[in-house]
Amino acid sequence: METEILNIEQAELSPELLRKIHAYWRAANYISVGQLYMHHNPLLKEPLKLEHVKNMLLGHWGTTPGQNFIYTHLNRIITQYDLNMIYVSGPGHGGPAVVAGTYLEGTYTEVYPDITQDEEGLRKLFTRFSYPGGISSHASPQTPGSIHEGGELGYSLSHSFGAVLDNPDLIIACVVGDGEAETGPLATAWHSNKFLNPLTDGTVLPILHLNGYKISNPTVLARITHEELEQLFRGYGWNPIFVEGEDPEQMHKDMAMALDYAVDRIKQIKYDAEQPNSLRPRWPMIVLRSPKGWTGPKEVDGHKIEGNFRAHQIPLAVSASTPPEHLQMLEDWMKSYRPEELFDEDGKLVPELAELAPKGDRRMGANPHTNGGNLLRDLRLPDFRDYATVVESPGVNGEGDTYVSGRFLRDVIKANQEKRNFRIFGPDETVSNKLDAVFEVTNRQWGAPVIPYDEFLAADGSVMEMLSEHQCEGWLEGYLLTGRHGLFNCYEAFIHIVDSMFNQHAKWLKTTLELPWRRRIASLNILLTSTVWRQDHNGFTHQDPGFLDHVVNKKANIVRVYLPPDANCLLSVMDHCLRSYHYVNVIVAGKHPAPQWLNMEQAVEHCTRGIGIWNFASNDQETEPDVVMACSGDVPTLETLAAASILREHMPELKIRVVNVVDLFKLQKSTEHAHGLSDKDYNALFTTDKPVVFAFHGYPWLVHRLTYNRANNVNMHVRGYKEEGTITTSFDMTVLNEMDRFHLVMDVIDRLPQTGSKGVYLKQQLTDKLTQHKQYIKANGKDMPEILNWKWKQ
Amino acid sequence: METEILNIEQAELSPELLRKIHAYWRAANYISVGQLYMHHNPLLKEPLKLEHVKNMLLGHWGTTPGQNFIYTHLNRIITQYDLNMIYVSGPGHGGPAVVAGTYLEGTYTEVYPDITQDEEGLRKLFTRFSYPGGISSHASPQTPGSIHEGGELGYSLSHSFGAVLDNPDLIIACVVGDGEAETGPLATAWHSNKFLNPLTDGTVLPILHLNGYKISNPTVLARITHEELEQLFRGYGWNPIFVEGEDPEQMHKDMAMALDYAVDRIKQIKYDAEQPNSLRPRWPMIVLRSPKGWTGPKEVDGHKIEGNFRAHQIPLAVSASTPPEHLQMLEDWMKSYRPEELFDEDGKLVPELAELAPKGDRRMGANPHTNGGNLLRDLRLPDFRDYATVVESPGVNGEGDTYVSGRFLRDVIKANQEKRNFRIFGPDETVSNKLDAVFEVTNRQWGAPVIPYDEFLAADGSVMEMLSEHQCEGWLEGYLLTGRHGLFNCYEAFIHIVDSMFNQHAKWLKTTLELPWRRRIASLNILLTSTVWRQDHNGFTHQDPGFLDHVVNKKANIVRVYLPPDANCLLSVMDHCLRSYHYVNVIVAGKHPAPQWLNMEQAVEHCTRGIGIWNFASNDQETEPDVVMACSGDVPTLETLAAASILREHMPELKIRVVNVVDLFKLQKSTEHAHGLSDKDYNALFTTDKPVVFAFHGYPWLVHRLTYNRANNVNMHVRGYKEEGTITTSFDMTVLNEMDRFHLVMDVIDRLPQTGSKGVYLKQQLTDKLTQHKQYIKANGKDMPEILNWKWKQ
Repeated sequence: METEILNIEQAELSPELLRKIHAYWRAANYISVGQLYMHHNPLLKEPLKLEHVKNMLLGHWGTTPGQNFIYTHLNRIITQYDLNMIYVSGPGHGGPAVVAGTYLEGTYTEVYPDITQDEEGLRKLFTRFSYPGGISSHASPQTPGSIHEGGELGYSLSHSFGAVLDNPDLIIACVVGDGEAETGPLATAWHSNKFLNPLTDGTVLPILHLNGYKISNPTVLARITHEELEQLFRGYGWNPIFVEGEDPEQMHKDMAMALDYAVDRIKQIKYDAEQPNSLRPRWPMIVLRSPKGWTGPKEVDGHKIEGNFRAHQIPLAVSASTPPEHLQMLEDWMKSYRPEELFDEDGKLVPELAELAPKGDRRMGANPHTNGGNLLRDLRLPDFRDYATVVESPGVNGEGDTYVSGRFLRDVIKANQEKRNFRIFGPDETVSNKLDAVFEVTNRQWGAPVIPYDEFLAADGSVMEMLSEHQCEGWLEGYLLTGRHGLFNCYEAFIHIVDSMFNQHAKWLKTTLELPWRRRIASLNILLTSTVWRQDHNGFTHQDPGFLDHVVNKKANIVRVYLPPDANCLLSVMDHCLRSYHYVNVIVAGKHPAPQWLNMEQAVEHCTRGIGIWNFASNDQETEPDVVMACSGDVPTLETLAAASILREHMPELKIRVVNVVDLFKLQKSTEHAHGLSDKDYNALFTTDKPVVFAFHGYPWLVHRLTYNRANNVNMHVRGYKEEGTITTSFDMTVLNEMDRFHLVMDVIDRLPQTGSKGVYLKQQLTDKLTQHKQYIKANGKDMPEILNWKWKQ
Repeated sequence: METEILNIEQAELSPELLRKIHAYWRAANYISVGQLYMHHNPLLKEPLKLEHVKNMLLGHWGTTPGQNFIYTHLNRIITQYDLNMIYVSGPGHGGPAVVAGTYLEGTYTEVYPDITQDEEGLRKLFTRFSYPGGISSHASPQTPGSIHEGGELGYSLSHSFGAVLDNPDLIIACVVGDGEAETGPLATAWHSNKFLNPLTDGTVLPILHLNGYKISNPTVLARITHEELEQLFRGYGWNPIFVEGEDPEQMHKDMAMALDYAVDRIKQIKYDAEQPNSLRPRWPMIVLRSPKGWTGPKEVDGHKIEGNFRAHQIPLAVSASTPPEHLQMLEDWMKSYRPEELFDEDGKLVPELAELAPKGDRRMGANPHTNGGNLLRDLRLPDFRDYATVVESPGVNGEGDTYVSGRFLRDVIKANQEKRNFRIFGPDETVSNKLDAVFEVTNRQWGAPVIPYDEFLAADGSVMEMLSEHQCEGWLEGYLLTGRHGLFNCYEAFIHIVDSMFNQHAKWLKTTLELPWRRRIASLNILLTSTVWRQDHNGFTHQDPGFLDHVVNKKANIVRVYLPPDANCLLSVMDHCLRSYHYVNVIVAGKHPAPQWLNMEQAVEHCTRGIGIWNFASNDQETEPDVVMACSGDVPTLETLAAASILREHMPELKIRVVNVVDLFKLQKSTEHAHGLSDKDYNALFTTDKPVVFAFHGYPWLVHRLTYNRANNVNMHVRGYKEEGTITTSFDMTVLNEMDRFHLVMDVIDRLPQTGSKGVYLKQQLTDKLTQHKQYIKANGKDMPEILNWKWKQ
């Protein structure tokens, strides 16, 4: 422990309080073991028989007693110091502990009135745990007080830091498992302390729980020297307080002192932060080293259990096929907690223990921050129409679509600065992604030193940037889960880094929708730019539009995908997404100056529909078209319009319909996605029998996947990125992937025999053009003038 | 620096050597700037004119001079100590440096004879850099000596550690960027030092390059105190040696001393490791703090450049539209390196500098480990048929498919133990994934202390386990890239954690196939188990079969997907994958005891075809079927066979064909994937007009995406995982997703009007069964006996 002087008077627990805390912990442990094993006879009023035990024993014991220990002690400091504190359970499977903790404090019963605080309630609680259709062995959305699901490991600290942003009063006790601590996302999340503002943000109190083992291996952090461990966390910028041992009495005393000290440090840091020229604080954290499966069976069938990896799941098998003494061992184990002292005759926690829990919203299972939708307020949004690009006629050059929306986002930040409920996250790409306008009104929040020539860095700012997509995503999720709004901007290819985090968040959203007591939260908005087609100097490694393929697999009522073709459409989509709830909205947009197609009025109409015929580019008015040219995404739209103009020039007799898709799910049937078109509406756009040549932003198969069961599927021909790329111009990228204007025209001709020799001749011309292009770009390092200077002509 | 005594005599560079090293660095910097800017006049023999400069200036300067500095100094120690060393360039965009380094040492010209070591060669080299169709601004596969592409950040250390495994003589100088160091994967990769065996593995010498800035932000590690930085790396278990400054002369001296010291420590550690009871070593690392854009322009247009984030890309814009003095500044900058002293009249590096480079294979660009295919030898594989499960008739119960293949893998390890060229990687799941048999012959390699009751841990072992999918994947990639073989076993849902790493590796494989001088390497084999259908106690968070959707987007000649339905098929597939080259093979298999269908002979035949009719389950022999029941994956196969047996019992007159798919790409057209079936063969299996009810392991849409352009597409009805799940039995999971036997039967009936009232009646019966199932599982926590005890009957 550090040498700073303890300012807190009370330095050791009174024997009375120690006894009660120990009893409360025993109650939590009892309820945890009950969840793992018991189907009947929850209070062991009768001698334990096999038929009282569940048929299938599933669940996890290892981390549970340690987390019960922590939860119990946190209850004490919450009450003692009137803390606004919530609990994040990082280790994989601490479900029994958080369920026990919230049950004992009463919140579980408030949320699930059927799970009463009596013998029958206990029996039901025990039975539903890890039971088909029941509750999980980790802190799932079903658990009151949880903002973090422990299924996939690594995000507990990032979630916690995101949650305390702009919540200056909030303290998150974030239990980090030593297994989880080996993951990459967690290993870098310790650095989040450089991004916190002690004046305007809350506090994360990490509790690294060294119980020594994962599923069947020791953990790295439990097997390095004490010196290394301390250096590591001091190097990460923390002030580690060690609580180590296994004797409960001594551990209670040490833990209490450690927490008193931590609270004292936190208060001191908060106080210091108000003084001028304060330095980046060294926040306290706790390292709790306790045996895995603490207080459980010491040895079973000759195997060491407590303090070993074998305590990870069910430490003691009990069934008709296990040795008969196992049943007795289970009974002894449960009785070792002396339930008769903990629960009254009805099965209710005795009053002297019940009073240890905090009251009302101070209970960690009832804290409003853990059901963020309760705190959610709409954003104040300026009228996005005020940021419109003037488009007098289609094809005028723009400033860069994200660049234009940057001005809108700037004013979103400004309008909500007082409420402090909107933030932008990104891995050092907000400027590169052309959202720099936001820095006219805010900064990147940065707690480390600022030196001359730095730009847009300050202790307080609405933009969070760290070169870790995991951190950006995790922070934003934590921010949203606690009832605020935000946007993650990212290079398109590298959003795959958080594929699995998106999965888990989408699952969280889906599950919470099914829980009436969980309120909806703001949507997770992901703006993807620096796209596959515009990697002029980054090349092949930066080309991957496949996040969309990943997203569409998640539940249809959660996911939304938008590909606005120009700046006005992006504004309209952005506004829509910032107003929405409980979705993951993925927006793909360009950042480079590019042609603009729709004025604001048209853009609003087009985006509201999500898909539509572009009449200015079509010549099939009031007839059936010969061909439908569809497009989705900015570069595909440009190439499609260029192709349409070539066709209309050379074959004016052809009836061409241009369809643009902003809302990707319009392609899917209305029976599969709420945004999907009915077959009637779909067929009205795409016809039932005419060829469709579709230029798509992403992998072409995604369009097939969405439209495989549409009437005109057999005539659908999709061009998109087929994993061909290098350092080159945007136009050359389309050529490499055969999505350029010339290939599109040839695709149309190939599908229209009526073009006859005229078609053959035009194809020959375009083939020559492609050869010219190759030669020109090789010699000049840029595109031919006719490409560079091409303009849409009405 | 540490207090250990330097054993190396030479403690400071001689003035002569210092002068030469500085000149070599200047040459590398000159060639780097040339790559960024020059199209003509590469040696500045004429006064610089605008037409000598490239039209589009793209590329990255910031990290380049620092990496040139490192590369130059490494050359010195390689020569001095005859080191077997290679270079990994971690920072995003050090392309100009590695190109310059390998060009100066002669390897670039050996690989690309067109890029001669003269003026014309220089001109061509400069021109191709960051030019359409040219070479990237990072250490891409095109760069000799590279085993690591710098496009997506975070994997340099993991790759390096994987590469030194079983290469005791090899040292990898791994330059880690301070931006990259913020990523999660990199932050945990520092812990790899606990997994290295100093006797049997080589050495990673990390060089943390603190140049202070990312694209437009400072870096975290550059802005913490020196004390914290040192603590952090000591805490990670390293011995950091600091080289900090900007004065070239002093920096040369300090870097030379630091490297001498590092080599000495490495030799000492290697020596100590041979002594009994040696402790885990504290390997040296170097922290190099030097200005971003070192030696480049100090200031441009009033902006600070050197030592600031503005040095990241092109630090000085030079074009017709920039101020005219910029051209002069560029000329001054390039001339500041005094090219006339470095290159002779022909443009060749002067001999006194050229001799500084190591010779032959000791050159970092020529080291055989960097073109691993050169070193690759086939594995010795036991006959997989010897591990067959006896299947006297279809439906016998198995031991768990991965469990059976564990015995095969055990003997693969044994057979190659002497060669040390095969390893298994996994995030603490090798036992959980039922591959425990491998621990009969090997251990998990673990360099931290081993204590009583640990299992299968040793200083030397063929299994690498750390709770970081990133590390497992990165280690394995490094191992493969240097010419060895391996397997990554992972829970299916969490393989998404490495989606983006898979992307980059698949891109590497695709690109290297196109480079004749790059030799093919062993396939990246990924075994996915603990699948979506068998998450009985983990539930919804552990359910995601979407990695397959992700994989199929990559280039068809790189990716392979297998879903063996039983143990014998898995053995056959595993053997095939371990023999293959240059693919990513994804194998999805079950780990729980489950029915077995094919004996070994049948399995080999079935897997060789990859898809086929299962005659034992079909009754359409010598006729057209009424319905095709297709399946892919172990659980879908079980449900399909159960459905077929219900149909055959109740409607023996129906002609049912059961088709099983092992090799997923068989579904795609032969024009799209080498494994794809021709339309003729596909139609022979699936018919052109009969209903197909397909039970698929993954998301159902993947089958539609693969078959959208097949004749019978309109009749294809696919069941699979549609994101419905919880803690429950495998059978109940299929019910939740309507892929269970009862739903499959109803799907068939719905598509066969000829079943008439018999069909209606059977549907009613099955609907009742589903209700019974729901009630039974709720009451008993397990499946109905008729499900549990169901057996296939001929």
